[in-house]
Amino acid sequence: MKMTLDCIPCFIRQALDAARMVSDDPSVHAKILNEVLQWACSVDLQQPAPVIGQRIHRRLRQIVGVDDPYRSAKDHQNRMALAMLPDLRRRIESASDPFDMAMRTAIAGNVIDLGVPGSVTEESIRISIEKCLSEPLIGDPAQFWSAVEKAKKILYITDNAGEIVFDRLLIEKLGPSRVTVAVRGAPAINDATMADAVAAGLDQIVEVIDNGSDAPGTLLSECSSEFRQRFNEADLIVAKGQGNFETLSDEPGNIYFLFKVKCRVVSEHAQIELGSHVVVSRDLYATACPL
Amino acid sequence: MKMTLDCIPCFIRQALDAARMVSDDPSVHAKILNEVLQWACSVDLQQPAPVIGQRIHRRLRQIVGVDDPYRSAKDHQNRMALAMLPDLRRRIESASDPFDMAMRTAIAGNVIDLGVPGSVTEESIRISIEKCLSEPLIGDPAQFWSAVEKAKKILYITDNAGEIVFDRLLIEKLGPSRVTVAVRGAPAINDATMADAVAAGLDQIVEVIDNGSDAPGTLLSECSSEFRQRFNEADLIVAKGQGNFETLSDEPGNIYFLFKVKCRVVSEHAQIELGSHVVVSRDLYATACPL
Repeated sequence: MKMTLDCIPCFIRQALDAARMVSDDPSVHAKILNEVLQWACSVDLQQPAPVIGQRIHRRLRQIVGVDDPYRSAKDHQNRMALAMLPDLRRRIESASDPFDMAMRTAIAGNVIDLGVPGSVTEESIRISIEKCLSEPLIGDPAQFWSAVEKAKKILYITDNAGEIVFDRLLIEKLGPSRVTVAVRGAPAINDATMADAVAAGLDQIVEVIDNGSDAPGTLLSECSSEFRQRFNEADLIVAKGQGNFETLSDEPGNIYFLFKVKCRVVSEHAQIELGSHVVVSRDLYATACPL
Repeated sequence: MKMTLDCIPCFIRQALDAARMVSDDPSVHAKILNEVLQWACSVDLQQPAPVIGQRIHRRLRQIVGVDDPYRSAKDHQNRMALAMLPDLRRRIESASDPFDMAMRTAIAGNVIDLGVPGSVTEESIRISIEKCLSEPLIGDPAQFWSAVEKAKKILYITDNAGEIVFDRLLIEKLGPSRVTVAVRGAPAINDATMADAVAAGLDQIVEVIDNGSDAPGTLLSECSSEFRQRFNEADLIVAKGQGNFETLSDEPGNIYFLFKVKCRVVSEHAQIELGSHVVVSRDLYATACPL
């Protein structure tokens, strides 16, 4: 999906917040803000918003001279999620519908976003899980499970660190033997990379590949040829998070998006209420919103 | 007070919101957004934020070719407040401390901000009043009333339409004979101008002057010489709203600011929690925050 004018003040705000997360130096904050304002003057609204996120975070890493400024935040998010894993696994196994419960848990994990230690607490994750378990999911979970049943090759595109631990619970239910997990090829905010897949133990149960890109989403044209080949070969793609929705919603494929709706632009484009937990087919969505 | 880097994404957001309020034409939205982005690249952070608000709204009026695009919104806000006036007056007269109650009512009225019909409802105003009546005020109301008791010439600088009706209740308690009310000299968002003072009936009980400026605050250097003379002659100045706080907090004078803290930048600068209702002396404030 394309960005809108509303994305502009939002990514300027995000650039300032991100600068403060990775540096205490006010001159760094002013520098990135000024550069982003200049980019914004000539932004191409035909692009999906994660293109701008990629540019901001790439430049921030360059300015502060740190390859992965969110590494400690991601480690914290993984540890927090791993501590919750045994209890969540027990809940899933004792649920009346363990498949539904595993899917909801993975979607609930999408609350872990752009967090630094302290900003996403175990408490906020628990609240998200309970909300995601008690409220109706938007979309068509039954159609999703029907697609899973038929699939031979599933490509599971992860979103954030921490969240990837919750993804493991769903991946176990999907049947690891036919699943390939994809992570980002290089750091992008707190998006999961190979280190996070390893922290979640995913490398022990499935093949994990990276997509060769540092965008906080999946910009196919920038991904490695290996990733694109897997994308094309998969008969089912599970894409987690808003960034993947924003970058893949116009791409062809049997794609299911599992995420929490976190911004007004996505909410309006997808015609789904802000804060909703969704499992939505790319085709179903394309029919409902022929943009 | 000076603006901060945080003001930049905020006024870009506000420019877009304001453009949508005054025009349905997407090219107008894109045009003002692009201009504001360009201004933002070279903004002088030594200025108070309302300087930017003034520039945005002046340019918007020019683009849409309407002198007072918020006129109907302001009329709506005045009508809504006038409908509540008899009941509020009864509550004040039957209160154990009618002076305190009138002051709190006037501060509660500051919730009516940048609203279009529907966005500030009678219900939201009632909630603000009840909150402002039941919670401790921040600052020193006793010192304010002591200053009122001594004052011979009070200049009461209003903020928004609608709110100005609530101000009337406090002005009646201050003693109209020694009060001069000042409104903006030209339209600035939903800030009160002479038409709103007349709608509130203030011209029937006090002298009303305008400040000769279209800033959403009080930029003394831009105000008329008549206004500046009244400002200098007054032995007590009552300044309503954040815009007046932002523009007058560094000016000398026996100024009391009565407002609701609505943004994080003001909250941090004044060291007052977001959402608080405050009555704070410029001197008291200057001692607490010697910036």
